[in-house]
Amino acid sequence: MADNPSTMFAFAIGIAARNARGEPLDCYFPAPLKDLEPAVAELVRGHFPAGTSATDGAGAGRFAEALDGAAGDGVAALAAACRRLAAADRPLSVVRLDEDGPIASTEEAYLKLHLLSHRLALPNSLNLDGIFASLPNVAWTSRGPVDIAELPETLVAARLAGEHLEVTGVDKFPRMTNYVVPTGVRIADASRIRLGAYLGEGTTVMHEGFVNFNAGALGPNMIEGRISQGVVVEANSDLGGGSSTMGTLSGGGGIRITIGSHCLIGANAGTGIPLGDRCTIEAGLYITAGTPLEVVDEHGEVVRTVKARELAGASDLLFVRDGRTGRVQCRTNRRAIELNEALHAHN
Amino acid sequence: MADNPSTMFAFAIGIAARNARGEPLDCYFPAPLKDLEPAVAELVRGHFPAGTSATDGAGAGRFAEALDGAAGDGVAALAAACRRLAAADRPLSVVRLDEDGPIASTEEAYLKLHLLSHRLALPNSLNLDGIFASLPNVAWTSRGPVDIAELPETLVAARLAGEHLEVTGVDKFPRMTNYVVPTGVRIADASRIRLGAYLGEGTTVMHEGFVNFNAGALGPNMIEGRISQGVVVEANSDLGGGSSTMGTLSGGGGIRITIGSHCLIGANAGTGIPLGDRCTIEAGLYITAGTPLEVVDEHGEVVRTVKARELAGASDLLFVRDGRTGRVQCRTNRRAIELNEALHAHN
Amino acid sequence: MADNPSTMFAFAIGIAARNARGEPLDCYFPAPLKDLEPAVAELVRGHFPAGTSATDGAGAGRFAEALDGAAGDGVAALAAACRRLAAADRPLSVVRLDEDGPIASTEEAYLKLHLLSHRLALPNSLNLDGIFASLPNVAWTSRGPVDIAELPETLVAARLAGEHLEVTGVDKFPRMTNYVVPTGVRIADASRIRLGAYLGEGTTVMHEGFVNFNAGALGPNMIEGRISQGVVVEANSDLGGGSSTMGTLSGGGGIRITIGSHCLIGANAGTGIPLGDRCTIEAGLYITAGTPLEVVDEHGEVVRTVKARELAGASDLLFVRDGRTGRVQCRTNRRAIELNEALHAHN
Repeated sequence: MADNPSTMFAFAIGIAARNARGEPLDCYFPAPLKDLEPAVAELVRGHFPAGTSATDGAGAGRFAEALDGAAGDGVAALAAACRRLAAADRPLSVVRLDEDGPIASTEEAYLKLHLLSHRLALPNSLNLDGIFASLPNVAWTSRGPVDIAELPETLVAARLAGEHLEVTGVDKFPRMTNYVVPTGVRIADASRIRLGAYLGEGTTVMHEGFVNFNAGALGPNMIEGRISQGVVVEANSDLGGGSSTMGTLSGGGGIRITIGSHCLIGANAGTGIPLGDRCTIEAGLYITAGTPLEVVDEHGEVVRTVKARELAGASDLLFVRDGRTGRVQCRTNRRAIELNEALHAHN
Repeated sequence: MADNPSTMFAFAIGIAARNARGEPLDCYFPAPLKDLEPAVAELVRGHFPAGTSATDGAGAGRFAEALDGAAGDGVAALAAACRRLAAADRPLSVVRLDEDGPIASTEEAYLKLHLLSHRLALPNSLNLDGIFASLPNVAWTSRGPVDIAELPETLVAARLAGEHLEVTGVDKFPRMTNYVVPTGVRIADASRIRLGAYLGEGTTVMHEGFVNFNAGALGPNMIEGRISQGVVVEANSDLGGGSSTMGTLSGGGGIRITIGSHCLIGANAGTGIPLGDRCTIEAGLYITAGTPLEVVDEHGEVVRTVKARELAGASDLLFVRDGRTGRVQCRTNRRAIELNEALHAHN
Repeated sequence: MADNPSTMFAFAIGIAARNARGEPLDCYFPAPLKDLEPAVAELVRGHFPAGTSATDGAGAGRFAEALDGAAGDGVAALAAACRRLAAADRPLSVVRLDEDGPIASTEEAYLKLHLLSHRLALPNSLNLDGIFASLPNVAWTSRGPVDIAELPETLVAARLAGEHLEVTGVDKFPRMTNYVVPTGVRIADASRIRLGAYLGEGTTVMHEGFVNFNAGALGPNMIEGRISQGVVVEANSDLGGGSSTMGTLSGGGGIRITIGSHCLIGANAGTGIPLGDRCTIEAGLYITAGTPLEVVDEHGEVVRTVKARELAGASDLLFVRDGRTGRVQCRTNRRAIELNEALHAHN
């Protein structure tokens, strides 16, 4: 993107909640754009400076008028949102990112999280440097985000007024559904999906499912397990209830986990290695990178013994713990073994 | 029921939330009836047509008067509810089901889910054909159900007004406690209990517990694990933290799981076979239908080796993985083995 | 404390929610005190009787004036809270506990839970006798606590008014964050932390984490697993996603679990024995007190075979299930073995 100055990485206009000192606690962008076409990028440059800036309802209204007739993915939605925001009697936040650099403000962090949840960017495709430093730790309440320092007074005031303040979390990341609900998904318990999760069309996340930011399921998927930061589950794969994928932030030892298509990770199972396509881990079995495994062919013959990490990314594998011997086995077929050996010969 | 035209399968009058087009998003029935006695059924027939229909506050008030003096389980509660609903200034929903046929409307689906959670019907006892098609996928919010297509505009409007809209889920099924709170239960986290769950008197569901619709615990029970769709846990059995029961919708391979009485499924354990009474699965062990097991008698002798499915429904079994051999064992006593063999001899 | 009549165990003034009969459903104490210095204790005795009593805004205001100039931990915060409570137009609740006796009222139970979550008392350090009997089972709703008997009518009234009542739980214990948010913590899903949890500075509890009352993490910690009642996790230890600690209320067989410092319990793993420092349990492995283990030294030699309970509280242990043999091993070094043997020789 930096190579082509006429395009623009991302743009959005939204509303931030603010603490008593006027600092942003979050930012809601109803219709963010990514990879703007030159004509739209030009319009944006004519109205707003690079980086994070402020405008008001009138500014949003003028920009909506300017967008009239412009073409491009999401442009009509942005224009409609700006027409609504023209009614604002409070400051509006504008983020114009000419390229995908490190995150420099709370609003920029929220824009990138919105891009992921709006399916405008895949997990692991954005520059998220600085995200933790840019996101304030916030009390998420039934009245919206509240500065943690202001919370005790807010709690007392609510009680004195006979009202109830529900504090649903204290975290740097909010729940996705308060900002973005992508089409064609079901989310049984929204408290388990962080803003910045990517849920593809046809994804169902059951109550025990969890999806971190910068992680997700490409859809369609049935997710009843935990998708850690950085992990991607490809189409038609299921995570069973309580199953675990090791993340890059903790436990995974630097290996990025991907689950290929048509995989099944059984209930209460888990993986510390990436899986190719059509792999199954039986319920209750946790495969870590260092797990010693017997590779067994379709005739039941033990072909070799490996550490699980040597099978990282391979397809057509069935992982079980043999109930008669307690050994962990990787059952597969001769073709998969040969493909896998060829693959690793070129590493 | 169809055999006796003077009785009636179920009846309720309630309030639906509706989208901008007037379509129902849910329906709340404060006092549903099941298996109505002939006199009450006759009164219902005199006021309301078969199937799903509409009335208003006046209609509810007239029906309350008609119920005056009628006898039967739940009739007084229904009359009281109708007297309250007489104050309604919005349309009311009526569902009269002469028999337990396939589900034909959103309101009918909600009535059957209410019957389960009101303990008027046991799991697996109702005709739920068509339930997924009849339930719209809805955004569940702090303002009640919202049509998903109307959600983005609702989110923007709330922000512009300086208000907060919490979206707690996007699902076909709502949380039970917003509709029904049965007596004598504790539910630590209501987001984990779907409407249509059956929680018997004396049931505690801890934070890690989960109960799907058409599933439940007969009570008293301590539930810290997951009760999948179709699964029933009988009295005095405990599901340990994070334990798993395979459902009929996914993973269970068509076997319907029941957990008998006085069973204990340990923390992080799981079962893919039904258990009889007084069975224990040790913490962390997952038994699937295909798990090979050594059956060991009270003298420590291995009696035989079986697949777990051969023990489906048997009582007095203790499932452990032997730490010295890694083998999965089913420890039991001679009497239980003989009973079990006799049982299966007649299969 | 009983030895020194001039001091006082605990004191607080707060606001209770009440049912239609005026009985308390909960009690919120904005600034509780513990171990009051004699001068402050004397002031309290001058204003309020021992045990649970009532006052009003004027009483709180007079006490705030009396506190002017008094010194001691938390006294300034208490004075500030009392100045705010002086505006109350509803009854206020006062709890003065001269010593740490059994719990005699709902307000006393709430005060002790507040002391734990305010980090004024460590788990297992308070007399909690009578807590279950003193805590009413309550419907926790978006309007605050509601008496369960009053809930059905409240639900109907909300529907008739076109409003939404969210019932988030039905339990004796509420969520901590609606009462106390300690400094320096992150709590991804507040529904998983009960009032009475102790979260030390620097503790992050992720979505899958759970902390019961009278249990906690001394901080800093990363908690993605379940901390059962009575369990304490010491500094710099991590509980992996879905990991389990056996509690004293269920499953633990009377052993109180402590996790020492610099431990790691892997995802979906669990422990039924206390751990010393620098111990690791690999992902997916559940150690119960009765698990037979091979103790293996740093040369891979099996030193002896024990039940896990014999290693309770020992340090520098790595627990794994050998993938080649299915045996559970405790890998350690000669020094740790010798220390451990010496330790147990003195038991």
